[in-house]
Amino acid sequence: MNWVPELACGVMERCDELAAITSEPGRIDRYYLTSEHRRCSDLLAHWMDAAGMAVWEDAAGNLWGRYAAATDAAPPIRALIMGSHHDSVPNAGRYDGPLGILTALAVVEYLNQEDIRLPFHVDVVAFGDEEGSRFGTTLLGSYPVAGHWQPEWWELADRGGVTLEQAFRDFGLDPARIGSCARDPEELLGYLELHIEQGPVLEHGGHPLGVVTGIAGARRFTVTLEGEVGHAGTVPLALRRDALLGAAEAALVVERVAREQDVMATVGRLNAVPGAVNVIAGEACWSLDLRATDDESRDQALRLIRSESNRLCDQRGLVSSWRETHSAPAVACATSLQSHQSRALEAMGLEPIHLPSGAGHDAMAMARITDVGMFFIRCGGGISHHPDESVMTTDVGLGIEAMVRTLLNLAQSSANPEGS
Amino acid sequence: MNWVPELACGVMERCDELAAITSEPGRIDRYYLTSEHRRCSDLLAHWMDAAGMAVWEDAAGNLWGRYAAATDAAPPIRALIMGSHHDSVPNAGRYDGPLGILTALAVVEYLNQEDIRLPFHVDVVAFGDEEGSRFGTTLLGSYPVAGHWQPEWWELADRGGVTLEQAFRDFGLDPARIGSCARDPEELLGYLELHIEQGPVLEHGGHPLGVVTGIAGARRFTVTLEGEVGHAGTVPLALRRDALLGAAEAALVVERVAREQDVMATVGRLNAVPGAVNVIAGEACWSLDLRATDDESRDQALRLIRSESNRLCDQRGLVSSWRETHSAPAVACATSLQSHQSRALEAMGLEPIHLPSGAGHDAMAMARITDVGMFFIRCGGGISHHPDESVMTTDVGLGIEAMVRTLLNLAQSSANPEGS
Repeated sequence: MNWVPELACGVMERCDELAAITSEPGRIDRYYLTSEHRRCSDLLAHWMDAAGMAVWEDAAGNLWGRYAAATDAAPPIRALIMGSHHDSVPNAGRYDGPLGILTALAVVEYLNQEDIRLPFHVDVVAFGDEEGSRFGTTLLGSYPVAGHWQPEWWELADRGGVTLEQAFRDFGLDPARIGSCARDPEELLGYLELHIEQGPVLEHGGHPLGVVTGIAGARRFTVTLEGEVGHAGTVPLALRRDALLGAAEAALVVERVAREQDVMATVGRLNAVPGAVNVIAGEACWSLDLRATDDESRDQALRLIRSESNRLCDQRGLVSSWRETHSAPAVACATSLQSHQSRALEAMGLEPIHLPSGAGHDAMAMARITDVGMFFIRCGGGISHHPDESVMTTDVGLGIEAMVRTLLNLAQSSANPEGS
Repeated sequence: MNWVPELACGVMERCDELAAITSEPGRIDRYYLTSEHRRCSDLLAHWMDAAGMAVWEDAAGNLWGRYAAATDAAPPIRALIMGSHHDSVPNAGRYDGPLGILTALAVVEYLNQEDIRLPFHVDVVAFGDEEGSRFGTTLLGSYPVAGHWQPEWWELADRGGVTLEQAFRDFGLDPARIGSCARDPEELLGYLELHIEQGPVLEHGGHPLGVVTGIAGARRFTVTLEGEVGHAGTVPLALRRDALLGAAEAALVVERVAREQDVMATVGRLNAVPGAVNVIAGEACWSLDLRATDDESRDQALRLIRSESNRLCDQRGLVSSWRETHSAPAVACATSLQSHQSRALEAMGLEPIHLPSGAGHDAMAMARITDVGMFFIRCGGGISHHPDESVMTTDVGLGIEAMVRTLLNLAQSSANPEGS
């Protein structure tokens, strides 16, 4: 395809430009509703505008650009949404999120340069929050677009004590207008996202691209263990109620059950209070992140982890309390979109490998209102959420081409809805 | 003994007055070289002055009061030092430290009221740092009095980045004068300290007071484990190098070895980096506090802990590095002082029970330059380093009397150095 290598180079350069927007120089730290968010939106709006798109920001701070349908398209004219997020985890890599926005933009640039108009609008979205790094709850950008909002989220606070509601106002947004973000399902054709795999499967198999079959359901918990503080030099071991040891045991239970039940489980955080070298911890707090491609396996693993870790806590005289902080069911990608994606890969001479996603994505929220599809692109060493994230420019070119071809397949099928 | 019940009530009231000096209302947080330190010193100086003592502050911010020897005492006139520290752990109780200063002061008040002058000076000291809460290194008050100072300590920094050297200047002290704190061993008769037991032994045995035989040697380490960060949803368990799990395993090794070897060992702190719910920890840091009444048992336990936890880290592909942050050999209390203390308890009709100290005390530093002795006083539930710390007023009265009697025994023996 013409232009595509140049577009791929452009995407890589733009990933570098976005990577330079960070709250801490020398790293990548971009969080929701911060001045870095604003700078990303300004830059993306400039690029969208140059690509011939109408640009707007919604009431949650997400940035949108529309590449309008052909003027002779038959009503009702619907929209295909493509995009991803530009917020990051702490000390992030430069491709998780931005690559999906920038390849979507490159697809529009291709269509625009080739003067191709489709029978549907192409809307590119840059979600402001997917990682949840600032407020602890993920998908705060895409959920309201899917018409989903929980009023208690307004009280979520960042480490500095700023509530989500205050952060909206500080960013120039009106919390009362959050409902206006919601896209009407009737007007949507689907949501298509390209994302780095964040795992080793494509690289090991020698595949530049894969079609995602679905997204694992994730549940997250914060578990607090209450024991008794004591002096490290004077309380005999037999009389201790050491909360840190209870948490350590629980973390190892999580690992054992995850192996036995073949699910993904991670304890990423473990804090002991007071956390002093010479004081027995009277309290400890640990986090659990649990994922599986089917919800029943995941919940079975959860039951085993809870009962076993609670039993061990009882033995230590610790009182444990579990609080669920996140729950998302497994989400299936639409078979119709998967088939358009597969045909695109085949037309390019690539094997249409299918694989599930262990990580969460904005597509999980969007699945509430429309068909979703995702391409995974291979990344170096399966590394993500780390400065060492990498992708190859040639793979990015293949990704752009696969997206364009998927859109053309979709255009053909929407012109002939009964199939060829 | 006359006066003693009133003196004990006064000590309890003064513990309450010192407890009201805190950087955070509703808790007790008193740290070295802060405005709370200054307020404590001012109050103590006022009380010392009222008890007929000459008062001075040394070059490390320790406060001293001298109750001079009898004017007809035969030279060389030496000094017996009594006291403890007024700094605290975070969210502390009100007796760990202050009780030792205030009972020493009550002993002087008794002597003063009874018009008793001894053949030696009685110096009461209020050390500014024993817990190490602010700069991470303990005994910064008593070490320079014992003539011990490590120049690298000047670079120790608190959580706000203020170095010890700067804190000295901010407090009005001249770091260059630190050497002037050192007391001349030739001029000392000994160091006697009363402290809450911080353990359950006296309470369980029904003893108000005990004579301390020695102080367990403590070593402390900060251990850092390096693994690899990764996405919680995409990196298969078999490919992870999860530093948090390595630290959890190490904490449980510490517990097992401590039980098997009958030493005290505590992991009070465990931090994972980046510490996010959905990120596999690429680094983890844990603290080890290890104590035993003889150094060889302690070091044998350390060898077992290191080799076993390093072996487990190897299995996980983690690189561990150990840094020793504190090391103090076990310290024996002087048998002569112990015998004067025992005789004091016997004269009061109390069983002269002897017990070791698992916790560190200023006496550890003072043992470098003079004989040391300690009384333990029973505390409620063995609790210390916690707002629930408690002692009984009647026990405090017995403590004051036991100290007075010990001093009188000492006076008698120094008058008849060859024994009765």
